[in-house]
Order: sequence, then C-alpha cells, then structure tokens
Amino acid sequence: MAQDVLLYAAPNTSADALWFGRFRAGDPLLAFTAKGKKHAAVVLLEVTRARREGVFDVVHDLQGLTAAERKRDPKAGVAEVIVRLAREHGVKQFTVPPDFPVAVFQKVVALGLPLKVGEAPFFPKRVVKTPEELDAIRASNRAAAAGFKAVEKILAAAEIRAGNFLWFEGKKLTAERLRAAIERATLDAGALNVAGLIAAPGDQAVDCHAEGAGPVRANELIVVDIFPRSASTGYYGDMTRTYLKGKASPAQRKLVKTVRDAQLLALSLIKPGIAGVKVHEAVQKFFEERGYKTARNAQNGFEEGFFHGLGHGLGLDVHEDPGLNTRGVKPLVAGNVVTVEPGLYYIGTGGCRIEDNVVVTDGGCELLSRHPYRWEIA
Amino acid sequence: MAQDVLLYAAPNTSADALWFGRFRAGDPLLAFTAKGKKHAAVVLLEVTRARREGVFDVVHDLQGLTAAERKRDPKAGVAEVIVRLAREHGVKQFTVPPDFPVAVFQKVVALGLPLKVGEAPFFPKRVVKTPEELDAIRASNRAAAAGFKAVEKILAAAEIRAGNFLWFEGKKLTAERLRAAIERATLDAGALNVAGLIAAPGDQAVDCHAEGAGPVRANELIVVDIFPRSASTGYYGDMTRTYLKGKASPAQRKLVKTVRDAQLLALSLIKPGIAGVKVHEAVQKFFEERGYKTARNAQNGFEEGFFHGLGHGLGLDVHEDPGLNTRGVKPLVAGNVVTVEPGLYYIGTGGCRIEDNVVVTDGGCELLSRHPYRWEIA
Repeated sequence: MAQDVLLYAAPNTSADALWFGRFRAGDPLLAFTAKGKKHAAVVLLEVTRARREGVFDVVHDLQGLTAAERKRDPKAGVAEVIVRLAREHGVKQFTVPPDFPVAVFQKVVALGLPLKVGEAPFFPKRVVKTPEELDAIRASNRAAAAGFKAVEKILAAAEIRAGNFLWFEGKKLTAERLRAAIERATLDAGALNVAGLIAAPGDQAVDCHAEGAGPVRANELIVVDIFPRSASTGYYGDMTRTYLKGKASPAQRKLVKTVRDAQLLALSLIKPGIAGVKVHEAVQKFFEERGYKTARNAQNGFEEGFFHGLGHGLGLDVHEDPGLNTRGVKPLVAGNVVTVEPGLYYIGTGGCRIEDNVVVTDGGCELLSRHPYRWEIA
Repeated sequence: MAQDVLLYAAPNTSADALWFGRFRAGDPLLAFTAKGKKHAAVVLLEVTRARREGVFDVVHDLQGLTAAERKRDPKAGVAEVIVRLAREHGVKQFTVPPDFPVAVFQKVVALGLPLKVGEAPFFPKRVVKTPEELDAIRASNRAAAAGFKAVEKILAAAEIRAGNFLWFEGKKLTAERLRAAIERATLDAGALNVAGLIAAPGDQAVDCHAEGAGPVRANELIVVDIFPRSASTGYYGDMTRTYLKGKASPAQRKLVKTVRDAQLLALSLIKPGIAGVKVHEAVQKFFEERGYKTARNAQNGFEEGFFHGLGHGLGLDVHEDPGLNTRGVKPLVAGNVVTVEPGLYYIGTGGCRIEDNVVVTDGGCELLSRHPYRWEIA
C-alpha cells in the first residue's frame, strides 16, 4: 500500500472497517496498515475473536495499550494509543477516511503524528467487486426474492371486499402485515433486515421512502422495496417490485410499462466507460419523451415524476459508489455493482418503482437479482 | 440551548442524530439548532417524510441547496450548505459531536465558519431517560424474553443421545438453530435484531462475544445474550441468561450461583451518587473473595474470570454512557439506564453471564427487564 491507512470505526456500521478486516463488531476498533501488514487493536474481550474471524496480521489489545498509556497520563485514550502504535511500527503519517471522527483526529495531530484526510471512496478497490462479493450480493437478493414470493402469496389469497379493502386471514390486509411477512421470509432465507423495509400502498408510495401504513386496497399500486443484509457476509441485496391486486386502470398500466421500459433502456446502456450520470439522464429524457413530467405539484407540495437517482452502488453499504445519479461523473468500470431502479410517482395514480442490481462486465452488465416482473394479481 | 449544535450523520447508525430528530433514515442528514429551533436538511425524497415523522421545526431540501451552491462553485457540497444555512439563520459558531466527520469539519472551518468540538456524551440529556424511553426499553426487553422462552422450549424438548449431543426435531441441536429460534421469536415480538446475537455453548462462551457455532451438548453451560432493537422506536433491550440441559456439575452450579449473587450485590449498590466504576470494582472484589481469579491463562491464551465491564448504558445505542466499568467515573443520576451483567468464564467449566437492565431511581434502581433465572433444564 502506497500510504498507510488508519481507521477508527465500528465494523457493523462502517463498511470501510468491515471491508478492511472482515471482522464484525458493534464497538469501534482501531485498524491500520504498517509495512504491508494489517493491524487491529480491539477491546480485550474481542481479541481472540478478531484473531480467529478477521483477516488481520496482528491483533493488539486496545485496553492493555490504553492502560499502559494511562500510567503516564491518566487522561490518555485512543489517540495516545494510535501515536504509540505508529511509533512502534514505523509509521510516519497515516491517511484517514473522510468520516474519521474529528476529536480523535485533532488529538492525534496535537500529539505530533501527521494525519492526511483521504477522499471517498477511501478504498477504491471496494467499488470493484470480487467473484465472492458478487455471490454474497446474489445470495442477499435471493432473500429479497423470498420476500416478494411471500407478498405475492398473500395478495393472491386476499379477498376484495366492501370499500375495495383486501382481507387476509380474517382481517383487513395492511402494509404492516405485508412487512411482517417479508421480514419473516427474508430472515428464513438467512438475511438480516435493517430498518426501512418498504411496503407502501397507493399515494403513500409517492413519498418514496415512506414504509407504508394501514390498509392495502384493491386496484392500487403497492411499491415493495426490500434491501436485506446478510447476517453472515454483511453484503446487501436491494430489489423493488410494484404490485396491484385486482384490476389496473389504463393509467396504472401505462405507468408500470413505462418504468419497466426505462429499466430495460438503462440495462442496455450500462457498460464500462459510461458515466453513471449519463445513464440517469437517458432515463430522465425517456420519461419526458413519454409524457411523464418531473416537478413539484403546486397543489399538494409533493415532488412528482422521477425525482430520485436511477441507482447507486451496492455492497457492504446499501448506498455506496458509484452512483447512477447526478454525482456519478466517473466512468463505470467492470466489477462495479449498481442498482437500476427507475420510478414514477403521481398522486392519484400512485407510484411504481422496479429495481434490480447488475455487475458491470467487459461487454455490458449482468443481473445479480432475479425475480419475475408479474405485477397484476387477480 | 446555550450553544448551537450541528450534526451530519445517518440516524440509523448515529444515536445522537436519531435522538435529536426522532427521524429514522439510512443516509446522512444535516441537523442543527438556530434561535431555539430544530432544523434538518435532507435529500429531496426524504423531505415530506422528515416533516411528517421527525420533530424538526424546519426541514430544508438538501439537494436544492446543494444545487444552488453549485451554481457558484461546481465543486460545492455539504460544507457550503452548512455555511449558507448558518448565515441565513444567524449562527456564528456550531458545536459538533466528537465523531463529526473530519473532512466536512475541515472544509467548513476553511470556509470561515468556526466549529467547536463537543465532548461525549454530546447530548447529556440523552443519558437521563424519560418515562417514554423507559417504556421503549422495557418493550425491547420483552422481545428478548420471548427469545429466552423459545430457547427454553427447545432445550426442554431436546433429547440427550450418544456423545451427550442434544437432538431436536430429528437433528442435532446447534447454536445456529437456537439463534434462528431467537431471531424469529424476537421478530414476532416486534423487535429488529442486529448482528451479534449470541448463543454460545461450552467453552465457546469464554470468548465472550463469539456468536456460537455447531452442536450444543448436554451438561454444558450455554450463554444466550439477546439485544434486540425495536423497529418502531429504535431503543435496545439487552438481556443474558445462561442455560444447561441435563445435570450441572458442582463447579458449574457454584459458578452460576456466584454470578447471580454478584448481580444481586450490584443491584443493591446502584443508586444516585455512586460512580459506575465503584459498582464494577465491588463485583471484582466479590468474585476474588469467592475464589474466582481473573487472569490470562498461560496455557491457552484466553482471558479467564471476570474480564469485561459489569455494565454499560443502554438506549438508542446498545453501548452508551454511563458505564459500570473502569471508564464510569461520574456519579450515577436518577434516570440513567444501565445493564448489570456480571460474568465468569473458564475453559473446562464454561461461561456464565446473567444480564438485566435497570433505571436508576431516587432510592436505588428498578428492573426494566423481567425473565426467570431458572437455568438447569432436565
């Protein structure tokens, strides 16, 4: 490694830290490189596990080192340990990620060890996935697909009664009931869901990160977005399907077809060398040409149309580089994994989003997610 | 508020950000105070949801503000937006939390807005829980208790066969099977589990954050540590029970009784005015007096005895202030919530940890977790 790096973060919430050490932990750890070796310093009760589960060359006892520093200065903390480890392992300067905690940064610098702030993505290799990483993403998408199957089974079994309410197992079917079924199905498939699973009926989907609440009705679009994280690998899947129980209106049918056509257009454009923003803009243009405008609705204050990015990188983070959005200015390279998720949202008609993931290949791209696109359920 | 604060963090992974805005989101948002009002700036597709779900007085469109700044400087980002919002709302200096990202910090300061780094805990009020917060922790502990019931049911139904292996539903019972049952039970009870659930049989529990793997045997201690996070409130519960299927040895029985006695001792000491470290030290001393030594075992390299903290604060973070450990130097105050989790671990005998949570009250403390302590299952 040209520059020695230093991280201070919890692997369960920092994808960089998890990628670096392949060691899951809820508390922050120190991780750094020195003379080509990977080091970690973890609390005493994690030392044995870090040696067994992580890919570090050396695991230090963070508590023991802190205690040693406190003999000299009772207020010593992690900054003093960093300076000591740098000295012991011959590091003159560390590069830290942009989200390195400022308090530790300032203290280390004040103690005399120079730190340089790196740029995102901090580990450029992390945005080029290995075959093992692609398999892990495929596996999490299989868990997502299990969630869609659960939704389809419930919608198929549901009865349409008075007021167009759907009834299932003797009760009004709700968004909450759908989410519970998805959670159970994805859990049984080995994934660990995170907060934010979406099953949003009707106009609720226009507020496109709303989770959905209350009764689900016949003849309305239901956006189901599932992004399970594997409990064993830490990799995410991320898929969306849009459903309708009953009979779709011409407007709903046209909306869904247009979104799917936009997705196929995007899939045809993704290849090495094209910048993500170009694919995003092609979809924007396509929607406009088909008559779907994007603007703030003056009456209800909602953004309508296609107002989010076409896609984002996916891996140990659910949103990572590269983006198929306005920030995606760098050309895509083989091995990048991105979501492809066009969507259209209008109060009255409802929302539709269809999302799959692809890996960029030498010749174009290849799907990492598989599930049918049947959406109208009688 | 005496000082205006500024946060830039994702509420799903930053307890401070979630506490400030009561708004769950996976992507970072800006949040700050100005003239006694709470502001947020979020990506466009979160604006409506932030207004509805959050407790902000004003919600800004982060994308719109960034686009406006980019008209002046194409490289503008969140730092320029922070400086603009500070100017527009009359803020001369912000205080940021110690874990504020260093790159944004440096850029804001370079743009001329002074930032001060605050100390942990950044929101001192967050360590004094309201009645609603206590109810949320109780609810997550009820989900943990549902997990223990699932384990007890399996152990009661399991048969002891050759080699002391346990059999359940026609298969060898494993740690993985126990964890799956716990995950399902806690999910059904409304909690969202996070990575790290523990069901560790025999000597595996001595590596006390090991999740546990492989067959569970009769007559060995099984440490089960469940820390579910509520999907709706974001608050954690955190409970541990230790089980044994079959017949305990005198050494195992003495170990479990000593750990439970240590917990009762700790519960008798916790009250306003005592520092957490004093309670921790009292338990250390108690174990030593009962003949349980803490040291590194020269033969196998494992730490043995009582080598972790007695407890930690609990709330929107699973580990927060105040600690019942060597760092817990400040006196406890009424409203603090802490785990009380003494443990003893020896290769050969196995591990035992028993964990409950309490809120510090005017007169002492009160349990927030309820589940029986029956551990030997015939």
